[in-house]
Amino acid sequence: MKSSYRERLPDFPESLSVPTVRGAEVRSEKVAQSEDRHARGLRTLSEITGESGARVVDSLRDIAPDLADWIIDFSYGDVMARPGLDLRSRQLATIAALTALGNAQPQLKVHIAGALNVGCKPQEIIEVILQMAVFAGFPAAINALTIAREEMGTVPIS
Amino acid sequence: MKSSYRERLPDFPESLSVPTVRGAEVRSEKVAQSEDRHARGLRTLSEITGESGARVVDSLRDIAPDLADWIIDFSYGDVMARPGLDLRSRQLATIAALTALGNAQPQLKVHIAGALNVGCKPQEIIEVILQMAVFAGFPAAINALTIAREEMGTVPIS
Amino acid sequence: MKSSYRERLPDFPESLSVPTVRGAEVRSEKVAQSEDRHARGLRTLSEITGESGARVVDSLRDIAPDLADWIIDFSYGDVMARPGLDLRSRQLATIAALTALGNAQPQLKVHIAGALNVGCKPQEIIEVILQMAVFAGFPAAINALTIAREEMGTVPIS
Amino acid sequence: MKSSYRERLPDFPESLSVPTVRGAEVRSEKVAQSEDRHARGLRTLSEITGESGARVVDSLRDIAPDLADWIIDFSYGDVMARPGLDLRSRQLATIAALTALGNAQPQLKVHIAGALNVGCKPQEIIEVILQMAVFAGFPAAINALTIAREEMGTVPIS
Amino acid sequence: MKSSYRERLPDFPESLSVPTVRGAEVRSEKVAQSEDRHARGLRTLSEITGESGARVVDSLRDIAPDLADWIIDFSYGDVMARPGLDLRSRQLATIAALTALGNAQPQLKVHIAGALNVGCKPQEIIEVILQMAVFAGFPAAINALTIAREEMGTVPIS
Amino acid sequence: MKSSYRERLPDFPESLSVPTVRGAEVRSEKVAQSEDRHARGLRTLSEITGESGARVVDSLRDIAPDLADWIIDFSYGDVMARPGLDLRSRQLATIAALTALGNAQPQLKVHIAGALNVGCKPQEIIEVILQMAVFAGFPAAINALTIAREEMGTVPIS
Repeated sequence: MKSSYRERLPDFPESLSVPTVRGAEVRSEKVAQSEDRHARGLRTLSEITGESGARVVDSLRDIAPDLADWIIDFSYGDVMARPGLDLRSRQLATIAALTALGNAQPQLKVHIAGALNVGCKPQEIIEVILQMAVFAGFPAAINALTIAREEMGTVPIS
Repeated sequence: MKSSYRERLPDFPESLSVPTVRGAEVRSEKVAQSEDRHARGLRTLSEITGESGARVVDSLRDIAPDLADWIIDFSYGDVMARPGLDLRSRQLATIAALTALGNAQPQLKVHIAGALNVGCKPQEIIEVILQMAVFAGFPAAINALTIAREEMGTVPIS
Repeated sequence: MKSSYRERLPDFPESLSVPTVRGAEVRSEKVAQSEDRHARGLRTLSEITGESGARVVDSLRDIAPDLADWIIDFSYGDVMARPGLDLRSRQLATIAALTALGNAQPQLKVHIAGALNVGCKPQEIIEVILQMAVFAGFPAAINALTIAREEMGTVPIS
Repeated sequence: MKSSYRERLPDFPESLSVPTVRGAEVRSEKVAQSEDRHARGLRTLSEITGESGARVVDSLRDIAPDLADWIIDFSYGDVMARPGLDLRSRQLATIAALTALGNAQPQLKVHIAGALNVGCKPQEIIEVILQMAVFAGFPAAINALTIAREEMGTVPIS
Repeated sequence: MKSSYRERLPDFPESLSVPTVRGAEVRSEKVAQSEDRHARGLRTLSEITGESGARVVDSLRDIAPDLADWIIDFSYGDVMARPGLDLRSRQLATIAALTALGNAQPQLKVHIAGALNVGCKPQEIIEVILQMAVFAGFPAAINALTIAREEMGTVPIS
Repeated sequence: MKSSYRERLPDFPESLSVPTVRGAEVRSEKVAQSEDRHARGLRTLSEITGESGARVVDSLRDIAPDLADWIIDFSYGDVMARPGLDLRSRQLATIAALTALGNAQPQLKVHIAGALNVGCKPQEIIEVILQMAVFAGFPAAINALTIAREEMGTVPIS
């Protein structure tokens, strides 16, 4: 017998799921949520990237202030802050994707540091990058390791 | 004070790390390892993909039998079987990469099933895919969800 | 004499630019904005894609309801609804990008229809696709034309 | 009732469309056209890129002189010079594609300058890049903005 | 002692290299060349793809007749017909690129058939695809093999 | 009458093809093969890249010693050393793929040098890169030429 995966997941936090039928309560709940997006985004950004993410975001304010806000409100407030997946897994997934794409070195660097910040072991980061040799080819893995080496040396011994 | 990440990771299993200086013992140890590659690969392939991975591999034997062996020996025996990262994280990383690349639908399908096999919750898979909207754009996430929906319905209720 | 491009653009609508220093008024203004995000997104989605975009978004509600909202609130409410670039140029830019990426056929189809909806001439769409032969290669252009041909036949003569 | 888009576009300049049946007149007309390809390409290259495009093309002459000619004759003479789409839209489409691809920074830089040359407002260029956050992910948009910032400062105030 | 590669290649056919300084003779030579582009393109297209390439090109005439001509005149007349690399190597290079890109299946199919047409052995085609497992990852190689299997069965035994 | 391509290729070296049914002899043969993987890989790596490839591999030993071994054992021992395609064609195929992908400049540089090492003429390398203008667009070809120019000047006159 089959079932949709959602039936099997009753514990998904409904507060993040806006019902399809939208009434007055939904609306006001949504406004409340919206007020939190920025605060939640700033907190998550800081938790993952320390100060380096905020620096990247601030550096965009001269040319694209709204993009800076989208990164905080949407990328970190709406997406990265979601329950349902721990931050360690989120960072490893990001590293996998940026390694495979191979054209986002500055972001890969930020997210390797971020992975260390949220408790990933250096070897776990390396493992994800090595695994990309299988899925995206050896050049992708080798070039990501070059970035990882730059970043790994700057982490204080805990 | 800085240190290389390897100093901080004394617990990484040395048996998988071939020393730079290669002597006779290293050689014979390596042969023993090599004998295990195929068995380890088959076991890991089966653990992750159940029978569907073996079917994919077998389907390659008519046209590229060596590629079939590489998948078992290298991809699963050398890479995916490595300690240092649990299979759940490995599968989520693979799903992230294939979603971002956007041109490997058959493999994405196999690895979503594989993620469920090794204990990922459906919502965790969805979370990784949603997160790719940030890193690879909305079309990548939407198209991966189409694949995920096909696969999610086929999983028995646990 | 040089100047930043922002000095030269005093007419950019400040209402969309949240100042870096955030005080109480900014906050309440932001909430008001947030209330509008969804309505603005729905209106823009409808303006660009007619009913087909809403259908795509609704089809995501079973598996990823929040992604459906992000598409409305973020993609269309925050981004596509922005002043500063007309919808025709936005659609042609989207077609260029999706043609070049070459791995988002369903979205390319929707946005070709969307381009026609907002007043792009069929030939303009073809011109953008042809131009991609220069920037992304002939296969990218040829495969996008296959999609364009499917879509172009369904547009009523105006 | 459906119709092909070509029926609806009787005003497309036939002089650029070579009929399928090729007779003597077509041939001679084509030769005449061919004579113009280079001149038309040089003029369009200059119109879009000022002197910087010509410099790029000339820099290829030592290693690949024919590529230099293809850029002039094909890319600019055959493609970019076509009627049916204004140069502003062409440049915005190119910026969208190169931002989304993420691996052609030198060309993105040239075409941002080119967009300004043909009359695009800086904000329009920024808007196209921001829009790519939706279609190709935030890293693509952020990295293109880095290039845009380099280029935007060099434009004289008009 | 170093030297530019061009000094070492005196035998490159000058007739294809248009000198930087363009005088009257160059012009008339160019016109003559231009007359030949289409004929040379048709001959090379036919030599590589048999009738299937011409079918693809003709299928574009309804929607983009000029693209059809560019394929003949530029892709095959200017590029693929060039001396300096044999057609077998050209086809294997194309197969490598399309396998690695992974988003151009129709073209990969045409060029696998084309490789067989110009004398590549089936095993050589397979070798190129397998090699892409190293440079672009296993999914790219596996998906290209699926296309190769479709095409390989249709070749008459020689 | 159709036939699979493998029937038509009886001369493919069986020693590299491990039969589907695996018995004791296959196993011991495989161990012998495995012993050779590393030696064969080192020899092929050296043949193609001279000392530069070994330098790249060694530079990975601090951070990912197993990746260094995979490059030798798998990429060069299993894949690049295979009979069925000459090294010149293999290098041209690699250059085609890396040019098209556009995000692996360090590897493109190594493999252009490698192509020269195994006997490719500089013009053949240029031809493959130029051909990519057709299949992956002009920016891909232009950026690969920039790398080629760096590398071409460092080759001793033969």
